[in-house]
Amino acid sequence: MNDPRANLTVSGALLDGEMVGVRCVDGVIEAIGPEVAAAPGEEAVEANGGHLVAPLVNGHTHAAMTLFRGSAGDLPLMPWLQERIWPVEAKLEAEDVYWGARLACAEMLRTGTTRFWDMYWHPEATARAVADAGIRATIGAPLFDHGRSAEEMRRSALASLDHLSGLGPAVSPALAPHSIYMVSEESLRWIAALGAEREVPIQIHLSETQQEVEDCIAAHGERPAFYLDRLGMLNERTVLAHGVWLDPEELALVGERGATVVTNPVANMKLAVGGVFPHPPARAAGVAVGLGTDGAGSNDSLDLFADLKAFALIQKHAAADPTAIDAAEAWAVASGARAPLLGAGEPLRPGAVADFLLLSPDAPELGIGELTADLVYAAAGSVVDTTVVGGRVLMRGGELPWLGEIVARAGERARRLGL
Amino acid sequence: MNDPRANLTVSGALLDGEMVGVRCVDGVIEAIGPEVAAAPGEEAVEANGGHLVAPLVNGHTHAAMTLFRGSAGDLPLMPWLQERIWPVEAKLEAEDVYWGARLACAEMLRTGTTRFWDMYWHPEATARAVADAGIRATIGAPLFDHGRSAEEMRRSALASLDHLSGLGPAVSPALAPHSIYMVSEESLRWIAALGAEREVPIQIHLSETQQEVEDCIAAHGERPAFYLDRLGMLNERTVLAHGVWLDPEELALVGERGATVVTNPVANMKLAVGGVFPHPPARAAGVAVGLGTDGAGSNDSLDLFADLKAFALIQKHAAADPTAIDAAEAWAVASGARAPLLGAGEPLRPGAVADFLLLSPDAPELGIGELTADLVYAAAGSVVDTTVVGGRVLMRGGELPWLGEIVARAGERARRLGL
Repeated sequence: MNDPRANLTVSGALLDGEMVGVRCVDGVIEAIGPEVAAAPGEEAVEANGGHLVAPLVNGHTHAAMTLFRGSAGDLPLMPWLQERIWPVEAKLEAEDVYWGARLACAEMLRTGTTRFWDMYWHPEATARAVADAGIRATIGAPLFDHGRSAEEMRRSALASLDHLSGLGPAVSPALAPHSIYMVSEESLRWIAALGAEREVPIQIHLSETQQEVEDCIAAHGERPAFYLDRLGMLNERTVLAHGVWLDPEELALVGERGATVVTNPVANMKLAVGGVFPHPPARAAGVAVGLGTDGAGSNDSLDLFADLKAFALIQKHAAADPTAIDAAEAWAVASGARAPLLGAGEPLRPGAVADFLLLSPDAPELGIGELTADLVYAAAGSVVDTTVVGGRVLMRGGELPWLGEIVARAGERARRLGL
Repeated sequence: MNDPRANLTVSGALLDGEMVGVRCVDGVIEAIGPEVAAAPGEEAVEANGGHLVAPLVNGHTHAAMTLFRGSAGDLPLMPWLQERIWPVEAKLEAEDVYWGARLACAEMLRTGTTRFWDMYWHPEATARAVADAGIRATIGAPLFDHGRSAEEMRRSALASLDHLSGLGPAVSPALAPHSIYMVSEESLRWIAALGAEREVPIQIHLSETQQEVEDCIAAHGERPAFYLDRLGMLNERTVLAHGVWLDPEELALVGERGATVVTNPVANMKLAVGGVFPHPPARAAGVAVGLGTDGAGSNDSLDLFADLKAFALIQKHAAADPTAIDAAEAWAVASGARAPLLGAGEPLRPGAVADFLLLSPDAPELGIGELTADLVYAAAGSVVDTTVVGGRVLMRGGELPWLGEIVARAGERARRLGL
């Protein structure tokens, strides 16, 4: 693994059918093209004809929930949360979160994700895991005032924001009110104002279940997106996780306000929320859309290649129309190209951050057919051979350093928690 | 790769939480347990603590359609078949089918599938690929009399049956009438009688689209399962691929007759047929159920681990109930334990055929949580480290011999066909 300040040159990579090299200096792509070759003495990576592609961005997860993987699946959302998740989360220590998040970072880097948006306890431990892993993340402490005082929530919000703001370019802070059912109207207003003042993004679960929508209408006389808008929390710095039940008027409003929806199709199906995020009308309404895995407790994979396919499949199924979404659109959503706020999806060109993947030149899934179609429908994360973040080679030849130790330590923490 | 007649001993494998060895003699498991150790001079495989699990069975595919991967996706079923598939299939040579099927066999062995059911042109070429790959398959030539004479179809059925019957234990013959809309009533009766006479299984696409059901009712006054039953084609040797639109009366009939349904959830979603095979009521009606990928042209992966998860997810989604199916049931379906006709799903014990998988001891997806839940929801086929079929080690350390050459040759054949 090279030094973050060193230069890196990749050669022999396939981009749009052409063999190219990529020269990275100080974490940025300096040059890309057929003429680029490694300078003597610099770190060089030979792609052996593997495809060069942009990485993926996981727009919504709870990284440390790898600790909850494979326990208490096959349950509905509320019993799962109330009986199996929350009692264990009450016992979580920072070190649990660190190793759970390290495992998540390892799995994401292995499968082509170089940036994620996180909402979880002990966010400072997740931030430390992100820095140690070399990945990028936008992180927020889960904020709520049900079951605790608004004052306590405010202290948590301010403390986490201060802590997460000073950690360098790999970690960005966010405010993360859990949901409209776990945070009071007054506290949502306060968080919205704080987000505006500090110019940080706000991520919130919204419209995951039909019950949530019905409860919102009963309590506030309006649907969730309109409720958030009235509180000042719907704008171009807002990420709405799920959005399954957004209706056409809400989609128009979300599009107008410039907010982003992150759809989590696998978690939605696993928890059987019953609906599907209406992607075609959302795009028609100009809504920015990203893709997330949600936490490994409700998925249970963090391989966004798999979820990218699930996203395309469930959109086709829900519309009963195989043309409802095509491979190029699914890939664009997963790579962040349809949601600028997520901080990814920039084309690979001089001046862009040096985050990219080299795919295995031997992957049988990519040997025949159109590349994007194969990436969406045939590939899994195992086609990723090399992962580069900020010009640093974090994985090479499909082998991630320290993986064995990370798996072992995360396993110890899970057993400590009785999982 | 060891000789098929040689003995093999596996040691250090994890089975139900216990470290065991497996001794295989002449393709059969002779002993399994903690006391089993390799004899000097025999081939030995050290599992290093990796899990020992039964392999998966792909109950419905068109193996050589790997050649069609990544081309003309995102189209509805009929235009896809009529405009993009059939014109190319008219040009297929046996050598195309051989290399397409070799690629399919390689991908299946890599991802834990050791047996598949195939329906495709030049079945003798698929059979040759199966033998060369060391996998197992039940193979049928697609039979139809629309667009050609019934006499021509009968010749094809008899010739393929004769050819496929003498190929040793790895290949079993089947009759494969394409569908009720491609085969006349008279020919279906003839095929049913031939199947009974020769005691071979019959596989047929059934109830894939709603249109097919409506057309059947319009033409024959009854739904597809009742139509097949009247023609003598619904019994314990019948495999119905898809079964999306089987209604409760049909499920009761299929259960009573002992026929097997193979569900293909990914292909059904990709082609957006609009419905979901009703698994919970089918099981309640006693229907035998298996899982298939369908051809790589309409999936486009042959990784049954991925489809196993898609199967569980779409069942939960369709029922709007996360308890509609659990991990154990999804795994049982994919491993063949719910469909004896498919020829897999036997528990690993002395006397059973020596077909099994060793999973990677380092797979991060399997380090935390309950094994079956992790296999279904967290794993992909890349967790398979070693694949053993009939006591022969076909893959070791995730590396399949000849893969590079197979990918290259299949690619050449696809380009020859203009794909």
